[in-house]
Amino acid sequence: MTGMLSDDLMRDLTATAHALADAARPETLRHFRRSIATDDKTGAGAGFDPVTEADRASERAMRAVLAARRPDDAILGEEYGATPGSSGLTWVLDPIDGTRAYISGAPTWGVLVSVCDAKGPLFGLIDQPYIGERFEGGFGAARVVGPHGETPLRGRAARPLAEATVMTTFPEVGTPAEREGFEAASRAARLTRYGMDCYAYALVALGQVDLVIEAGLNSYDICGPIAVIEAAGGIVTDWEGRPAHEGGRVLAAANAQIHAEALALLRGR
Amino acid sequence: MTGMLSDDLMRDLTATAHALADAARPETLRHFRRSIATDDKTGAGAGFDPVTEADRASERAMRAVLAARRPDDAILGEEYGATPGSSGLTWVLDPIDGTRAYISGAPTWGVLVSVCDAKGPLFGLIDQPYIGERFEGGFGAARVVGPHGETPLRGRAARPLAEATVMTTFPEVGTPAEREGFEAASRAARLTRYGMDCYAYALVALGQVDLVIEAGLNSYDICGPIAVIEAAGGIVTDWEGRPAHEGGRVLAAANAQIHAEALALLRGR
Repeated sequence: MTGMLSDDLMRDLTATAHALADAARPETLRHFRRSIATDDKTGAGAGFDPVTEADRASERAMRAVLAARRPDDAILGEEYGATPGSSGLTWVLDPIDGTRAYISGAPTWGVLVSVCDAKGPLFGLIDQPYIGERFEGGFGAARVVGPHGETPLRGRAARPLAEATVMTTFPEVGTPAEREGFEAASRAARLTRYGMDCYAYALVALGQVDLVIEAGLNSYDICGPIAVIEAAGGIVTDWEGRPAHEGGRVLAAANAQIHAEALALLRGR
Repeated sequence: MTGMLSDDLMRDLTATAHALADAARPETLRHFRRSIATDDKTGAGAGFDPVTEADRASERAMRAVLAARRPDDAILGEEYGATPGSSGLTWVLDPIDGTRAYISGAPTWGVLVSVCDAKGPLFGLIDQPYIGERFEGGFGAARVVGPHGETPLRGRAARPLAEATVMTTFPEVGTPAEREGFEAASRAARLTRYGMDCYAYALVALGQVDLVIEAGLNSYDICGPIAVIEAAGGIVTDWEGRPAHEGGRVLAAANAQIHAEALALLRGR
């Protein structure tokens, strides 16, 4: 069914995605850089995975928009899980991607919105409410609108990995084997940078960064970025070259050449 | 002499600092997220230390402001070095702190401006032109003005290191001994984040982060942040507890208690 989306439906899905991000903005900004209680999803002593009231309020605000505009679509949200639908379309929502950045005051977290069919993301947004910057990709659109206007998104031209910039959020990356894979690519690259959360994927789409390599992701961490990067001509797969929209180990690349070069270092880990 | 600054002089220095940051903004933004040639200050194969035309243009614009407004003050700039003066005051300028962030498109670089006497910074700014955010400290002021208005700066209240957030720009930090020092503090902390460049110091002043620990800094990397953090009630020293305005190993803390706790782990490295 979703192989033949009408122009009207694409317009409605696009407008709905923007309405979702618009609804999330005040909820995330209300608590950003305020003193907030964080509670640890994984229980005391089991690591640091903050969940804030902002995270939940942001997802509730987006679910209210979907209930009004698209009641037949399914929803998969980080905070409130899966809600079934009948349309064949699923909204995949991360109300705050990068909660550790969020609680540190850094403007590298984002609200991730995408609409998917069974094969993966069709359209997605990476929204940074503090900066006021929204990256959009799908249905023919590939652009960012931010504090200095609108810019088209386009992954940078191919260059050898030895001249490339690679990003990941934290140096541990994942398991020891995953860390080794990342470090093989990092050693081969010219520049490695950390700490950007979902903003790193936006920088691939912007043509500023060649690769993002991460592991242990969930579907809601990556569906929005996949839509934005693919719309900018980039490629996102797992470390075996398969579709990445279900999460796990992710390789996001600005173009096919550098994707192939990095994949050769990651495959089989 | 500068122990007795008049109100008029303080007002003029404050206005001059803002004029410097205003002059740097268009120069840094002109090339940000454009394709730019980078040339390697240290020569081929000797590491990656990009210097961009934006860096130089930004410092030239600031020097032009000082030539017009404060011709008797000395200048120390990252790109054009030291210019002597006769007033006892020195403007310490980093036209783009975080050039690696800059060439990656990340909005964590900044323009650092400070005015110092022989004992250190009197007033300083951390300016982020893309976000449109300026952190200001000294002469009784401690505030940030950004896309969502004005907020006072105040380091967060004391908490144990075990509950604290620590930042540094890259995990290698510096020499192996310096890395060990950082890692001792990082292990003791609750959360470690990377990649924020000068923005990490701004987050200490904002009350969002407890500690920034770095090594290998130059005077122009830290004088602006010292002024901003001290105005917010924080403390910045080297790893022996001495003044840090000449650079080197830097410990920036939100308050005296956490400064002491971190210093105990770093001292004597």
